[in-house]
Amino acid sequence: MNANLQVCVRRFPRDVVGVDDFELREAAMPEPAEGEVLVQSHFLSLDPYMRKRLADAREGRYPLSTGDVMMGRTVGSVIASRDPAFKTGDVVLGWGGWQRYAAEPGQNLQKVEPLEGGSLSAHLGVLGRPGITAWLGIVSVAQLREGDCLVVSSAAGAVGSLAAQMARHLGARVVGIAGGDAKCDAVTRQLGAHACVDYKAPDFAQRLIDATPDGVDVVFENVGAGVLDATLDRMNPNGRIAVCGLMGHYHSGEPYAFRHFARVLDRALKVTGFRIDDNIPLHGRALRDLRAWFDAGVFRPWETVTHGLEHAPDAFVSMLQGRGQGKTLVQLT
Amino acid sequence: MNANLQVCVRRFPRDVVGVDDFELREAAMPEPAEGEVLVQSHFLSLDPYMRKRLADAREGRYPLSTGDVMMGRTVGSVIASRDPAFKTGDVVLGWGGWQRYAAEPGQNLQKVEPLEGGSLSAHLGVLGRPGITAWLGIVSVAQLREGDCLVVSSAAGAVGSLAAQMARHLGARVVGIAGGDAKCDAVTRQLGAHACVDYKAPDFAQRLIDATPDGVDVVFENVGAGVLDATLDRMNPNGRIAVCGLMGHYHSGEPYAFRHFARVLDRALKVTGFRIDDNIPLHGRALRDLRAWFDAGVFRPWETVTHGLEHAPDAFVSMLQGRGQGKTLVQLT
Repeated sequence: MNANLQVCVRRFPRDVVGVDDFELREAAMPEPAEGEVLVQSHFLSLDPYMRKRLADAREGRYPLSTGDVMMGRTVGSVIASRDPAFKTGDVVLGWGGWQRYAAEPGQNLQKVEPLEGGSLSAHLGVLGRPGITAWLGIVSVAQLREGDCLVVSSAAGAVGSLAAQMARHLGARVVGIAGGDAKCDAVTRQLGAHACVDYKAPDFAQRLIDATPDGVDVVFENVGAGVLDATLDRMNPNGRIAVCGLMGHYHSGEPYAFRHFARVLDRALKVTGFRIDDNIPLHGRALRDLRAWFDAGVFRPWETVTHGLEHAPDAFVSMLQGRGQGKTLVQLT
Repeated sequence: MNANLQVCVRRFPRDVVGVDDFELREAAMPEPAEGEVLVQSHFLSLDPYMRKRLADAREGRYPLSTGDVMMGRTVGSVIASRDPAFKTGDVVLGWGGWQRYAAEPGQNLQKVEPLEGGSLSAHLGVLGRPGITAWLGIVSVAQLREGDCLVVSSAAGAVGSLAAQMARHLGARVVGIAGGDAKCDAVTRQLGAHACVDYKAPDFAQRLIDATPDGVDVVFENVGAGVLDATLDRMNPNGRIAVCGLMGHYHSGEPYAFRHFARVLDRALKVTGFRIDDNIPLHGRALRDLRAWFDAGVFRPWETVTHGLEHAPDAFVSMLQGRGQGKTLVQLT
């Protein structure tokens, strides 16, 4: 009962991530050292960036070894504290990883306020790193304006779905890109996007043209490769492309041949890669906006929740394969 | 003697530009209409962007037809004026095209001051569009700072050679990229670049690594394709890439497969395409800086001059083939 179930990295995947790359382990309950806090996790966030972490770790560019507990963002309750800033019962965000209990240094934790009518899981989504990431791309990098046409790829994903809703609230025409009819339907019906284009359709490029009759002003890019290439050709002069993810460039060994790269010059585009941890001074402003929009009902809850830590590897692989919609979470309690 | 020699577009090239795409013609001396000014050209500027104009004209995106005088920037003397703002003997910059005499509307002309110890041709180079273009990329788009490492491609070209000298003056470490030993030698010896890498060398990527031991902060890009790809892999975090030209993407039908495109995200890069005519409000500031630097001797004159308008097609093809260094000009008088 008190033992600490963990999911550890068994080996680093070469290309496609599989459930066999992880293994379950029972460990002793951690003991918080001086300055540490013992947290029981309620929710674990599963995110596409974790694939990149595994790839980086394999090449020694990220501090994670085989046998370690897999890393991840969590929200949980303090059950013991040796940091005077936290007391039992506090609800905190942290980097607990894929385990039931974690002893974390107090300075790695943030206390979060309870949400009226909202689940704790919102702190891992709209009020967490996905929300901040979407805000950085839409508000800070791309400086979206009312009346802009925005294209957002991976529109059914955690970050893309928030970017789409935020942009719609800010008065943009929102065109999502997602894989398959079910996701595209959800993006238009649940998120209120004006259109959503299926990148798996053989006539994807033509559908994108039809969905963007006045061209594209802003792109929130999560994929790159062929999805970005088709969008490049639709850009209006002085268009802005906020590059949040390039999933299409990570899991194939082949370099991607852009047909429309010259649009960067022809259309005087700004293509900007951004990372959440490079922009920490902006997080406070982002969270204030996100909280106000959250309270005003701008965001529709959209989560794929798996119950039980032992199913985390399955849920992760499933997310990477494009199943699941909105924010992917594991519920532990 | 008074007849107007012209070089006209005979046909639009499909891919490689040849001298047969142009033809010489003798026309009557133009008569300036009310508001027009008759200018005798002294120098005609030949520039890489003209290839793009021909390609655009072929597809109806630029107003130039077969049989028309080829377009181009000129500096000349007013020999008759029906615009009160100009008088005989004024030296003016205009769009006279590939002909000895042009009747141009006064509002298309700019009077230029005589330069002490400088040739009129400087108004088509450092104090003209190439200078303004280099300034826009280095100062406005990339915001080069002292101590930055700058890579400039086509460093032996009109714009690249000015960007390199400007950046050196501003305190950057300057690494040129050019084709062949002769050009690379000239870029280091004549322009004072710290290094210059031959993109035709089989070990180009390794040479670029050796020349940029601390990575690259700013790129002034004229080529794209494999030259840009190798540079992408050398970028430091938050690097800036000012895209001024993409010659490598225009004259091959094949899309270019970037191996290192994901660096845009990994290194949080800003890639910005810019065009001189989109930035007219900045031209005045650019020209003030350029004139001050010119007077202070920052720029070393570097021109490839062909004498006689009848040789303009040859000179143009030769420039596109990468022969010639610095600013390419035709002298008409």
